[in-house]
Formats: sequence, C-alpha cells, structure tokens
Amino acid sequence: MAKEKVVLAYSGGLDTSVAIKWLQEKGYDVVACCLDVGEGKDLDFVQSKALSVGAISSHVIDAKEEFANVYALAALQAHTLYEGKYPLVSALSRPLIAAKLVEVAEKENAVAVAHGCTGKGNDQVRFEVSINALNPNLEVLAPVRDWKWSREEEIEYAKEKNIPIPINLDSPFSIDQNLWGRSNECGVLEDPWAAPPEEAYDLTTPVEATPDVADVVEIEFVQGVPVSLDGENLPLSELILKLNNIAGKHGVGRIDHVENRLVGIKSREVYECPGAMTLIKAHKELEDLTLVKEVAHFKPVIEKKLTEVIYEGLWFSPLTKALLGFLKETQKTVNGTARVKLFKGHAVVEGRKSPNSLYDEKLATYTKEDEFNHDAAVGFINLWGLPTKVNSMVNNKEKVNS
Amino acid sequence: MAKEKVVLAYSGGLDTSVAIKWLQEKGYDVVACCLDVGEGKDLDFVQSKALSVGAISSHVIDAKEEFANVYALAALQAHTLYEGKYPLVSALSRPLIAAKLVEVAEKENAVAVAHGCTGKGNDQVRFEVSINALNPNLEVLAPVRDWKWSREEEIEYAKEKNIPIPINLDSPFSIDQNLWGRSNECGVLEDPWAAPPEEAYDLTTPVEATPDVADVVEIEFVQGVPVSLDGENLPLSELILKLNNIAGKHGVGRIDHVENRLVGIKSREVYECPGAMTLIKAHKELEDLTLVKEVAHFKPVIEKKLTEVIYEGLWFSPLTKALLGFLKETQKTVNGTARVKLFKGHAVVEGRKSPNSLYDEKLATYTKEDEFNHDAAVGFINLWGLPTKVNSMVNNKEKVNS
Amino acid sequence: MAKEKVVLAYSGGLDTSVAIKWLQEKGYDVVACCLDVGEGKDLDFVQSKALSVGAISSHVIDAKEEFANVYALAALQAHTLYEGKYPLVSALSRPLIAAKLVEVAEKENAVAVAHGCTGKGNDQVRFEVSINALNPNLEVLAPVRDWKWSREEEIEYAKEKNIPIPINLDSPFSIDQNLWGRSNECGVLEDPWAAPPEEAYDLTTPVEATPDVADVVEIEFVQGVPVSLDGENLPLSELILKLNNIAGKHGVGRIDHVENRLVGIKSREVYECPGAMTLIKAHKELEDLTLVKEVAHFKPVIEKKLTEVIYEGLWFSPLTKALLGFLKETQKTVNGTARVKLFKGHAVVEGRKSPNSLYDEKLATYTKEDEFNHDAAVGFINLWGLPTKVNSMVNNKEKVNS
Amino acid sequence: MAKEKVVLAYSGGLDTSVAIKWLQEKGYDVVACCLDVGEGKDLDFVQSKALSVGAISSHVIDAKEEFANVYALAALQAHTLYEGKYPLVSALSRPLIAAKLVEVAEKENAVAVAHGCTGKGNDQVRFEVSINALNPNLEVLAPVRDWKWSREEEIEYAKEKNIPIPINLDSPFSIDQNLWGRSNECGVLEDPWAAPPEEAYDLTTPVEATPDVADVVEIEFVQGVPVSLDGENLPLSELILKLNNIAGKHGVGRIDHVENRLVGIKSREVYECPGAMTLIKAHKELEDLTLVKEVAHFKPVIEKKLTEVIYEGLWFSPLTKALLGFLKETQKTVNGTARVKLFKGHAVVEGRKSPNSLYDEKLATYTKEDEFNHDAAVGFINLWGLPTKVNSMVNNKEKVNS
Repeated sequence: MAKEKVVLAYSGGLDTSVAIKWLQEKGYDVVACCLDVGEGKDLDFVQSKALSVGAISSHVIDAKEEFANVYALAALQAHTLYEGKYPLVSALSRPLIAAKLVEVAEKENAVAVAHGCTGKGNDQVRFEVSINALNPNLEVLAPVRDWKWSREEEIEYAKEKNIPIPINLDSPFSIDQNLWGRSNECGVLEDPWAAPPEEAYDLTTPVEATPDVADVVEIEFVQGVPVSLDGENLPLSELILKLNNIAGKHGVGRIDHVENRLVGIKSREVYECPGAMTLIKAHKELEDLTLVKEVAHFKPVIEKKLTEVIYEGLWFSPLTKALLGFLKETQKTVNGTARVKLFKGHAVVEGRKSPNSLYDEKLATYTKEDEFNHDAAVGFINLWGLPTKVNSMVNNKEKVNS
Repeated sequence: MAKEKVVLAYSGGLDTSVAIKWLQEKGYDVVACCLDVGEGKDLDFVQSKALSVGAISSHVIDAKEEFANVYALAALQAHTLYEGKYPLVSALSRPLIAAKLVEVAEKENAVAVAHGCTGKGNDQVRFEVSINALNPNLEVLAPVRDWKWSREEEIEYAKEKNIPIPINLDSPFSIDQNLWGRSNECGVLEDPWAAPPEEAYDLTTPVEATPDVADVVEIEFVQGVPVSLDGENLPLSELILKLNNIAGKHGVGRIDHVENRLVGIKSREVYECPGAMTLIKAHKELEDLTLVKEVAHFKPVIEKKLTEVIYEGLWFSPLTKALLGFLKETQKTVNGTARVKLFKGHAVVEGRKSPNSLYDEKLATYTKEDEFNHDAAVGFINLWGLPTKVNSMVNNKEKVNS
Repeated sequence: MAKEKVVLAYSGGLDTSVAIKWLQEKGYDVVACCLDVGEGKDLDFVQSKALSVGAISSHVIDAKEEFANVYALAALQAHTLYEGKYPLVSALSRPLIAAKLVEVAEKENAVAVAHGCTGKGNDQVRFEVSINALNPNLEVLAPVRDWKWSREEEIEYAKEKNIPIPINLDSPFSIDQNLWGRSNECGVLEDPWAAPPEEAYDLTTPVEATPDVADVVEIEFVQGVPVSLDGENLPLSELILKLNNIAGKHGVGRIDHVENRLVGIKSREVYECPGAMTLIKAHKELEDLTLVKEVAHFKPVIEKKLTEVIYEGLWFSPLTKALLGFLKETQKTVNGTARVKLFKGHAVVEGRKSPNSLYDEKLATYTKEDEFNHDAAVGFINLWGLPTKVNSMVNNKEKVNS
Repeated sequence: MAKEKVVLAYSGGLDTSVAIKWLQEKGYDVVACCLDVGEGKDLDFVQSKALSVGAISSHVIDAKEEFANVYALAALQAHTLYEGKYPLVSALSRPLIAAKLVEVAEKENAVAVAHGCTGKGNDQVRFEVSINALNPNLEVLAPVRDWKWSREEEIEYAKEKNIPIPINLDSPFSIDQNLWGRSNECGVLEDPWAAPPEEAYDLTTPVEATPDVADVVEIEFVQGVPVSLDGENLPLSELILKLNNIAGKHGVGRIDHVENRLVGIKSREVYECPGAMTLIKAHKELEDLTLVKEVAHFKPVIEKKLTEVIYEGLWFSPLTKALLGFLKETQKTVNGTARVKLFKGHAVVEGRKSPNSLYDEKLATYTKEDEFNHDAAVGFINLWGLPTKVNSMVNNKEKVNS
C-alpha cells in the first residue's frame, strides 16, 4: 500500500533537512518544495539536497514575480510598516508559500503540508492559518515544533541519519530573506540596550562606509505601480532587486525593532529593506501630491489594518480582499515620478511630479498669481470654530462674563 | 473718551509693525504683545520697536517653559506627525500665543485681539478658533487679511508712516520658529519637483557637511517626560534647545512636505526639527519596550486624532483634554533611557532600557533558558484561524471538496 | 442676444417658485428641473407650475430606481446612521439631484445651477460641493440664501409677481422626503425637552394606534441587495416603497435626533424611515450570520466614515469610491433571508438563514455533536493573556511578590 | 501536612458543586466563594450548600454596588454594545469576580483559583486573563473544562458523591445574570432561523402582553452618572434594579444576537437588559445635547475599543485605564435629565434638558430670532469643497473642458 504524502516547505537548511527524515520515520513520503521569493539562494543545490536526504520528489518554484506583483505591491501601496517600523518582510512571503504548498499538495494528492517553524514565532501562525484557509482538508505538520530537540540533539540525529550539516551552522543568526528585505533575530540581539553587531547586516553598507557621492534615481509610477527606474522599464521583481543593490550600497533601510509578536511576547529583530523603504518613501510622496485630502487622511486607517491583518497571518481572510478593494481605488491617480536621493543611509525624495498633481501653484502661491479666495476664510473660520465657541459660551460662563 | 484697546500679536516684522499703525488709524489703542516660544529673537529690540511704531504698551512674555511642558510635551508623547511628516511646529505655538493674548486683553480691558495672518494659511484658523474658545466676547481682527495690499503697497504705506523696513525684506522666505522647530514656506519652494535650496534651512547642517564622527547621547525619560540628557537634569525647554544644537549639527530633522492645509489647498513646506525628531524617536523606542501590545496598537489612533485636532486649530476643544486623558495614562510606565546615535542626518536609537521593560529575555530567547510555552501555540493557532477556516469551508466548497 | 441659462432645482413650493422670478430678474433664462426620488409628489402639477411661473422649460426626471440602486443601497449595505441615529435621508438625494442638474445644465448649455437652500443647513453644502465636483465651470446660485427676505417679504414679492401661494403655507414644518425616508425640522421642535407633536409625522402610525397583530415579512438578499419581499421579486425602489407602507403601518422607524450639523450648530430633527430601518436591521442580521469576524469588526469603521462623508456632502470625493470598493467586497457572501416581525414600532429579526452562513451548529453546540476543540482554549488563553500577564509581573511587582 | 487551598468561584449549581468534590479528590482544600452581582439568588442557600458539599469555608460577597459604580457605569458611559448589540452582561462581571477571588485567595494563602467554565466560551478567557493579570503566581484551574464528562457522567458522579442535584436540571437553558442584564444560550437557540421561545426570557414581558399605558420616567445624570429616578436619589445598583423592573414590565431590552466569540466561533445568544438599554438610550440623548461635535464624533472610536477590550477579557490591561481616562474627561458636562417613555418594548427619549446644553435655539431657529451668520456659509463651502473641486479640475479634465 502506498504511503501518504506530505509536502514540506524545504529551505535546504538543517531543520528542514532533518524534517525530511523525521517525517519519513513517521511514515510519510516527503515531497520537498522550495520557493524562490528573491532570497538569492542556490536553488539547484537546494533541490538536489532534498532528494539526497530522502525526499521522493523536489520542487523548486520561481515565485518572484508573483511575490512582487501581489504581495510586495500591496505592502508598497499601503506603506505597511508594522508598529510604524517593520515592512512585513517574512509576513508577506508566508501566504504565498502556503498557497504554493497547497497547490503542490493538491496536485500530488498529499494529505498534509509541513513547515519548519518553531512554536514561538509568528510564521507558524501564518503558515497554518493560510493553509487551513486554502484547503481545510489538509493536515498541517510542524516537525520542529513537535520534536522539541536541543540543537545538540538535532545535530546528533542528523549525523546518525547521514544528513549533511551546513558549514555555517555556528552562525548565531536566524535569517529570512526575500525581495522585500531581510530579517534577522538572534541571541546577540536579545539585549535591547546593546547595538546590533555589524555582522547582523548583509544587504546594506554601514553609513560610515557608504559612498561620499549620492545616487539620484527617478522612479516612475503608473496607478501606484513602480514601472521604471531612471527611465528603464522593469518587471517589478527586478526593479526591487535593483533598488536593493543601489539603496543598499548607500546604507538605506536598516531597522532595529523591539516588536510585539502575535504570540504574545516582545522580540527584538533587525531588518534590512533598502528597496522597500526607498519605494515606500517615493510612493508616499507621490500620494502626497495626488491624493485628495480626505483620502490622504483616511487611507492610513486602512494601511494600519492591512498591516495588522498581514502580520497576524490573515492574508486569506475576506478582510484582506476588502481592504485591497479600498486600496485599489485610491491608486488610480497615483501616476508620476519621484526623484530620490540615496545618500548616507537616506532615501530622500527631492522632487515629485505628476499629471494628476493636486498641488495647484495658483492656489498655493503667495505671489500676485494667487487665485485663492481669501475672504472665504472668514466664513470658514466662523463655522469651523462655532462648536468650540458655543461650548465655551455655555461651559465657561464664569470666565466669559467676568 | 478713551479709545478702545486691541491686543496685537507682535513679531517685530514688517506686517505686524504696519498693523500697529493700521489699527491706530481704525481708532484703536494698540497693545503689542510678543511671546518668546524659543525662536531666539532679540526680544528687547522687538519690545521697543513696537513702542517706537506707536503701540501704547509693549509686552514680552517668556513662554518657553510652558510651551515645552504642555504643548511640545503632548506632541512628543503623542508622536504628532501630521500626515506622517510634519511635527506641528507652528500649530503647537498658536494656542499658547492665543491664550496669552487673551490674558493680556482681559487684564488690559481690551475689546479685541489682532493677529498678522493672511487669509490663506492655517494659522488664522488656529488663532481665531482659540481666541473664540477662550473668550468669545473678544473681537478678532486680522489686519493683513483685511487690507489686501501687495508687498509694494505695504512698503509704500510703511515708508509714509515712518515704519522702519527690516533689512532682510528681500528674503523670499516666510519663517516661523519655536523650540519644537522651524517652518519655511516660500516662492522658491512652490515647484514640488525642485529640491529645496540650501538657504531654506537654518537649524541643520546639510548631511554633506556634517561631522564624520557621531555623537551618542543618552536621554532619560520619567513617565514619558525627558528629564535628562547624558545624565544632566535639564528643564524641558533647555533640553530641547540643547538637542536642537547637537542634532542640528548632525543634520537631523529636515522635512520637505507637500501637505494638505485646513483651508483646502496643498502647500509645500520645509521644516527643521532636530530636537523634536530626536526626542520622538527616542520616546517611541522606549514605548516599544514598555507599552503592552494592545496599548501600543491603539495609541496610534489617539495620536492621529490629536495631531489632526491640533493642526486644525482645536487645541481648546474638549476633545483635546479627553485625548490627553488617554495619553497620560499610557505614560506611567514609560520610564528609562534611550541611547541615540546622531550621525549623518540620522537619530538612530541603538539601545533602550527600562525598569518597566516588558521585553522578557526568558520568553524571547531561543536558548535553553526559554520559558515560553511552545505547546500553547498549537491551541492558539487553532482558535485564531478558526473563523477563516470556517469561512473557507463554507464559501470555497468547490475547491475544498474537489 | 440670448440670455444666459440657469438650471434650477425646482420643487413646486413657494421658495423655488419665487426663485424662478428672482433669477429672471437677475437676467437669466430659468430651466426648471424636478427630480422624483420617491417623495410621492404630483409631478405633472410641479412641471406645469414651473412653466406658469415663468421657466422657459421644465424637466421632470424619474430618478427613483437610480436613487434606490446606488444611493439607498450604499446606505443600506453600510448601515449609515449619522451619529448612530439618522439614516441620511436628504443627504443621500442631494448628490443625485446635483448630478441630474449638472447633466441638464450641460445639455442645455446653461452657465449656472441654482438651488433653494438657506445659508444654515447642510443641503447647501451638499449641493454646491457636488456641483463643483461634477462641473467646476458651472456657477452655483442660492437665491434663497441671497435674498434674505423674511417670510412676509417673500409672500409680498410672490403676490406682486402673481406667483401662486401654496395653501398649506401656514404649516410650521419644513419637510424633505424620498424613498429612504422623511425628515422634518421646524419651530415646534426647537425645544429639545418637548416631545415632537403627532402632526410632525406622516409615514408612520403612532405605536398607540398600530395593529395588534404583527406582520411577518421575509426579505431575501443576494450579495447584500434586497431582491424579494415575501418571495416576490421587486425592483429595489418598489421594495422600499412597499416596506415603507407595511412597516410604517406598524409604526417602525420614528427617529427624534438632536444632531450636529456640518455648519457647526446642533439642530433637532424628526425622521421617519420605516422601510430603511427595517432593511438595515434585516441586512445587519444577515451579515452577523455571514461575515467572518474580522470583517464584521472592521466594517463599522468604513461605515462610520462613509456616513460622515455622505452627510458632509462629499459623495463625489474619490474617498467615497474607495469606501464603496471596500463595501462591495464584503457583500459577496451576504446572501440569504431574514424573517422580520413588524409589530408595535419594532422591526425584529426573528430568524435568518443563508447558504453562506458561518454559524456552524457543530462548533456552537453544547450537545454531544460538539466538534469544537476544547483543549485548544488552554493554549489560546495562555498566549492571548501573555502581554497582560508580563505587564503585571513587571509593573505590579510589589503585589505579586508579597 | 496541610493541604494546599484553592478558591473556587461557586454558584450553587451542579457544575461547581461537583467541582468542589473533584478538587478535593485532586488533593485541595476548597474555599467556596460566591459573588452577588445582582442576579437575585438565595445567597444563604448557596453559602451553606458549598459547606454541605465539602468546602472548608464558604464566602458570600455583596459586590452589587462596586459592580454598578465601576463596571456597569463604564459600560453605560461608553454605550458598550458588542457588535452593535450585546451590552456585555457577563463580560462585565467576570473581571470583578476574578478580582474578588484573587483577594480571597491572597487572604487565605491559597495557591490556586478555580472557575466552572467549559473550554468553549468567552468566560474562561476572561477569568484566566484577569486572574493572571492580578496575581500571576496563582494557578488557575478549570475543572469542568478538564473533566470532559458528559451530562450523564457528571450526574452519576454527583449521585455517587452525594451531591444534591438541582431540581431544574432539565432546563435546557444556560443562564448568567447580573444587574446589567441576563444572558441565555442553549440548544433550542441553536437554529438561527428559529425565533427564541418565550421561556428563554425572564426579566421582560413579551410586547404582546405589556401594559397599554406607558410609564414615563425622568432620569437625572451628574457628570454622566445616573443619580436619580423620577426625582428620587438612589445608589446606582438600586437605580438599575428599579429600572430593570419598570422597563422589564414594558418589554424593553430583549436582544437576539448571532455573535462572534473570542474563541473563533459564532454563537447565538439571547439577552435581556431592560435597565441597561434604557439607561444607555437616556445617556446617549443627553450626550447628543451636551457633547461638542468633535467629541461626539470621536467618542464612538473609544467606545468600540473599550467594548472589544472588555468582551475579550482584557479589563485589567493598561489599555482599559487609558480608555477610561478618555471617557472620564468627556463626562464632565454630561449633566441633566432625560425623560423616557417606556411602552411596548420601547424606551424612547421624548425630551432632554441640561445646564450644559450646546443646543442653542438662537442659532438653530428659523424664526427671526436667528443669530446664525448665514453669509459665513458661502466662505465655508468654498473652502470645504476646494479639495474635491481641484481634484475634479485635474482628474476630470475631459468632461470639465468639453
């Protein structure tokens, strides 16, 4: 009788390699599945390693463009910064990975999907809620959470089973990376009074070592989508990767965050998002020019909710679709170009222009071209302040009549 | 018969000097009143100039400490950044100035209060709504909005009346400054595609010219109030001024903003807030360490509303008091120290510590000290994702059952 | 030379009849335009009266179905109750009327549009902001606001110009009505301690006089749209009118509201919305059954904003489109039937059913069919309460360790 | 050696009586603790039953006045209706009960606290999170959740241990009651299409059987606190109980709600809150008269959050204190009287008056007493609609210029 199949999110690292064997020993046939969301891995190596460790088949899926056009784009247009700081790097890739795992599981007639998360992070929630939302019939397994081994026990098991041990195993860092950035949490960061060590970073140059000459780039947006960099049209995934390089060189996008996890604890993480932070700044400035005031003032409410929904693993909730429905309407006039100076860790928008600009020099000017109706202000102030005035007349009588 | 008195917010500049004469010609005795909110003016000069131009008396009021402890502190603790960018520099001083004008008017038995704003900015709204809220019996006059002169006509009038013309009259800039920062709007900024010229800035060094060695400062907070800088206890107004110097030297706090004014137009302004931006960053990081998650996630709603209320001139609305009532409760545990590196335009918090820190290494760690209950996650995820799962079972039946 | 044309929103009443003459005397040719939004007027009479008073042409437009399907439907699906009470009766029709006036003006090559509002209500704002949004080249005239006549002066003018005076002129009530309800503000309501007199109502029976036997109706919704009443498919405008009758007979939908107008004052109004209130209740109950929790909990934020945007005259702002973009996504699963008991002023939903019901008896039951995972709660509570617990351990040390 | 003590929340019913024995068999000494929060039980019976079943001591605590003045008052002033419907009956009493249990546990040197909730409701969360927040050193036990017996098994155990079986054991209803109302969930309610049976209700007369003559009551508030009923000063707990009687007699306050529980499922519950709903209506109407517009429009955001925080068991989170800090500021001018007509299931506010009324007849009137500045509206509209107008000029060019 054929064994039941499980599709494992496979990274090529020690945990998921050990998980292949562990799942086999639980009686499953393991289908390994590795997604390329722009972390720049050697995918051939990962694919063949899965097979060598014992997977019955090994999939590698290039999901960069889908990741860019759906997940990163939503994050960009909604300026999703969790707690005002974290651009949702890993939180964005989890639902996409879950979706691909489910696709593979359905194609392969697997009964379960497995991931390599521990019991303490956000990602286990994101994976499991997403998988349940996409196919509630699939069981979700979490070998690393289940086996509860110490590092030493895990290595011993690996040696015993002839699983290759990665050479950088002593690295104290726990990294996740994709197009939208790189996250790092680890022991040396656990003292929030200590500055992160330089080794914690990889995508960005320290400001001390950045070039003394700025790069200035022009980013063009059509309906809120970045379409070209310095005049060159690029698929979004490439545009982001290119910006990661240029902005990273100038030290843009380092973030050091003590954050509230979904599972109830505070943790300290270090992020690098040079391209993401540059794009968010450019996009925001273009919105400042093109969104009408009441949209500009309410959109942050949607942005905050979308950020939380994504962080909390609810990408596949109907709420996400509704929030994106709002978002999409707002982007129709977000057309134009932002000129961004990259220098010493800064991505500063120096100029922005748009065919849909609502900045009207004839209204804004203090020169004699002024077309603003100055008398209107008197009536406006009269009614604008009326509630406060009546309140004062009623409730501060003592003072008023004295 | 004695003339009626008007109390004029007097700055020493051309507009309000001309206003003294203009109000006199309307039949008023003019009481000049100049507030020191930290803009670093020569106050003796301003005081005597008012008299020389024709005021019957001239008050100078040092309001720096009140400005710091009430207005700037609220802005700091609420991280008030209008549209995510502008730290409310002028919007903060207007209600305080209005309050002092009303106080003087009541003491002097004046019938009116006058300000020097035009008909197009936010400040006229803030002054008039505040004055009406504090004493609805006082009339509010706005000579500059009323006379509608061109610059040339105003100068001609000044010459005719022997009003001294300031030497820097050709400056294209329209500046307002206080402890919390400096704002600048002017003709040369009216093209949002053009970068602001270096002359638009005064408090901050351009990043290109900042020192190559960082300054690292430690800011201590007690219940959300900054009380010491590098171990030295300072009154808040001095602490802010000192930080303006240090952070300004490193180029911290330049802001270039296309903003939505209350009066319905977009305008482009340049701000410099080195001390304010440094303090807000330090305070936010300390909150990240000390606020419980649900407070951290709801406080931004209060912050956004308080920002809008202040920007829109409603400081003296009962809503402000209620928002501050919320704010104050949140600050009780915001105690501790942030270590801030000032370098190349950045104020980066490198470390934060607090006796009220909710960051618990024993919960956060991935070492064997871990006290987090990993099994709890399974139950948590089960219930957390249940609504989405049921939704999927009901609404995606085709897929699920296939 | 031909005169310039103005399109006047014409109701057939005294104010707008006088306005025809007044506009003529200002030199315009007046095109009268009367919209039927379900107020049940004698439209032929209105149309011919306009001509008899002097309009050069007189349009009557049946806009009931458009009003129902666009404006009332948005109000229904968003449960728009201004300040928790007022179902936006007049606020909903103003943008539609403005749109039709602009259409006629463009077709007739008119240079202006005129409305009959005074200077103190919300409707002037709604008309003018809408017209400006739809065609900023059209001038907007407000004869009643401009002429500032007393009632007596107006009547004298009418007599002089042979304008027929309506027979019910002594009615103290100022009424506006459409499919979605009827609003009434007037002198006798101006004491908020006094109960509204029975004559203030027209669409609803007083509870004291309602039938002693309930009517029970079943309302079916498809994607949030009411499509049938007791099994009979009806166009939305007819369905609402029919419900107005049945629910009105049972006294449903009387509202007595001291509200904050946009123009800064409180006013007291009486509304009757039997159909609207019945539909909102039915729709809400169906949403309670079919919306996933996180949508149910965030939708009220959208609802409140949409309510304010509509009340404040900003229907044609891009914000409305974005809010409707959110709303539409949420309605996809709002399918099913609500059974409503109409009795003694109540519209009580007694039962609701849906093919998209997320109420799962097997999860909700306390019988042995229970499929809920009771053990999951332990883990859930552990993590759900963790932040509060850590906060307590850190900040209540005295107590905890005692 | 002395046994360890556990303090059990004891109701006198079967579950908690069995729990006494079950806990004893686990090796604990059981201290029973019954709170009177206004449910109208025979407390002497409950107290002695605990002892007869085996508790080593039995406390009965009258917490009605504290419940009224702290918990019910917050609910009243914040109009806390979960999902727009449920007035938080049980959710309000849980934190108070938890606080009393912890007090007793600390006094008795107990090591644990126990409650009788199952694993599926909200109350287990509220109890456990509250107890952890108040004293994280206390263990929390949930016997009913742990033993997982069927009803039959539980009864068999009770018989075996000589625990008296209540005579109404066959009642299909699961009831909780306090001053603020009564909740009922049970099998016969599990079909959301079926109307609740009349036996599900206890505090309220069905509308069909209510008196044909209304009662009209006047409720006076001082700073948002109800202080007298028809002129008679009453402690809040008595005032609520009295209103429960009068309003209940008229059938006020029945609620039938399909709600989203915290633990991820929808459940259907029936509530009766005659006093609570009457007070909330009266209070809201007084706020409509006395709160300035911007407070009236923002307070609902606080109300919604406070509702969710309480529903979700986070009463002892610092967020609650901050929300109450806001709330308290808003109540300072909520003084005056509401006149409420109780009739046929309705609590209709017919009149409201206040020394702090912001309703100004001279501004609101349409008579010649009118003091409103009608011309101000022109300027107001000009600026209010300016963003929408500019947006239209820029983005609808085709149309505008055609």
